[in-house]
Amino acid sequence: MSNPDALGGVLAPILTPYDAELVPDSERFVQLAGHLMEQGLGLAPFGTTSEGNSLSVPEKAELLDALGAAGLEMGRMMPGTGCCALSDSVALTRYAVEAGCGGVLMLPPFYYKNPSEDGLFAAFSEVIQRVGDPRLKVYLYHFPQQSQVPITHALIERLLAAYPGIVAGIKDSSGDFANMESMCRAYPGFKVFAGTERLILPVMRAGGAGCISANANIHGPAMLDLWRRWREPEAEALQKDMDNFRAIMEGMPLIAALKALTARRTGDYGWRRTRPPLTALPPEAEIELVERLGKANIVL
Amino acid sequence: MSNPDALGGVLAPILTPYDAELVPDSERFVQLAGHLMEQGLGLAPFGTTSEGNSLSVPEKAELLDALGAAGLEMGRMMPGTGCCALSDSVALTRYAVEAGCGGVLMLPPFYYKNPSEDGLFAAFSEVIQRVGDPRLKVYLYHFPQQSQVPITHALIERLLAAYPGIVAGIKDSSGDFANMESMCRAYPGFKVFAGTERLILPVMRAGGAGCISANANIHGPAMLDLWRRWREPEAEALQKDMDNFRAIMEGMPLIAALKALTARRTGDYGWRRTRPPLTALPPEAEIELVERLGKANIVL
Repeated sequence: MSNPDALGGVLAPILTPYDAELVPDSERFVQLAGHLMEQGLGLAPFGTTSEGNSLSVPEKAELLDALGAAGLEMGRMMPGTGCCALSDSVALTRYAVEAGCGGVLMLPPFYYKNPSEDGLFAAFSEVIQRVGDPRLKVYLYHFPQQSQVPITHALIERLLAAYPGIVAGIKDSSGDFANMESMCRAYPGFKVFAGTERLILPVMRAGGAGCISANANIHGPAMLDLWRRWREPEAEALQKDMDNFRAIMEGMPLIAALKALTARRTGDYGWRRTRPPLTALPPEAEIELVERLGKANIVL
Repeated sequence: MSNPDALGGVLAPILTPYDAELVPDSERFVQLAGHLMEQGLGLAPFGTTSEGNSLSVPEKAELLDALGAAGLEMGRMMPGTGCCALSDSVALTRYAVEAGCGGVLMLPPFYYKNPSEDGLFAAFSEVIQRVGDPRLKVYLYHFPQQSQVPITHALIERLLAAYPGIVAGIKDSSGDFANMESMCRAYPGFKVFAGTERLILPVMRAGGAGCISANANIHGPAMLDLWRRWREPEAEALQKDMDNFRAIMEGMPLIAALKALTARRTGDYGWRRTRPPLTALPPEAEIELVERLGKANIVL
């Protein structure tokens, strides 16, 4: 937490590698983390792209330990710590704060559908109070398509009123720019991260903080370049390039595709592995993806 | 597993009590477990009604230990052990088998939506193979409204072919009787449990095994009576009574309502507590519920 702005910019929801037994592989994980951070990215481990919910709390704690042991800057990490079980969320959030993480990205508990606003407020509130650490910075994770549990403005307002300085921002993966824009307008100082690189320029113009998106695992430098230069005349063209890149990835099983491309980049085919229910990218899809990228002259 | 039929009949997805700190309370848990089993019910701990996904793996292991330590018949237990993380599902399933549970009720990993059939097959398959214990009996948990991840017939057929004798049955909480009927017809020996007491008579007539339903926490004896007498002429009338009872509970936040009624029955108001995102039953709803039950002359 040395640098309060350490969590702006572009963060990669870093992929999780597995060994042949499907156990998370710290060595490959630290290699990718170092590679992404050298590019200037922050990290959002244990997000959706990281298969975060396919990992147990002890597995996630061990991977955080590995990042720390490798001497990586923990203040630029925003691990996902929101689980279905209150006890898991508290344990993992506390662990992340004690490891020096700059923030945590918190899903609401996502098994029960249509929870009341009081229930969701209590879910976040209990975690914040039990962790009870002024260093805690909570970024809410709004991804209604996946979690099925949206973070409403009414909920954000209650949380900001109850925990100013702790509730720090949101990752909005809904794809709904109007929602991001209205949060930027309504909550000054609340950091809004677009969950897609398709919206880097719009969200920065609206006053947002940056972007946390799956594709940062393979295309981070271009995303960072657009983020840094959003005020410049070239920004429109850079955003258009970004949209073209995104169109190429569209329709692919995203996590498996990112793992396949990481395997190609590193020459380490163990990267292809996923935990169920996800499955590795079929070879024919990989060939198509590589062809598409080649035709568009995109080098990763 | 001394009695292979121990898991027929009516099972209660037993409520989980908490102390004032919202820590699971083994003492109250064992009291309710004993009460329900004395009524002749089996138990399905850590189901949806049990707030199973709001508990961590160590919390669930501790509650299973408490049931065992109380000398309750573990062969009549079917704890929920399907988690989002493969490692959690394996650890908890192994724990349940080693504790002598007659079966486990397994949700698919439910964070990722629209998983492929291969991915879901791998999810169940990896747990079964890693536990690798011939005593394991897996009951699939089909609850598409809540998990958003349905268990299709194609998946059941692949699992039955790969793991005969291990994949033992299903709890179908979809409410779709046609689905239950067609499973009873298509998979001889595969135990189909209706997830609602509204379908006890229809599912028994179709060749089903019984019922696992939230309301067994408060109305188990009547459910068991109907299950035992489904071939008798009175069965239609008993099912009608059951439907009337169910109509009374309809529209109530079910888990909170069951906890409030358990608090009234035992005089122990700690039973009202829920973990977020669920909230306790508001007093006005409790008054209405008690009035409705009174008017219908239902004594719990």
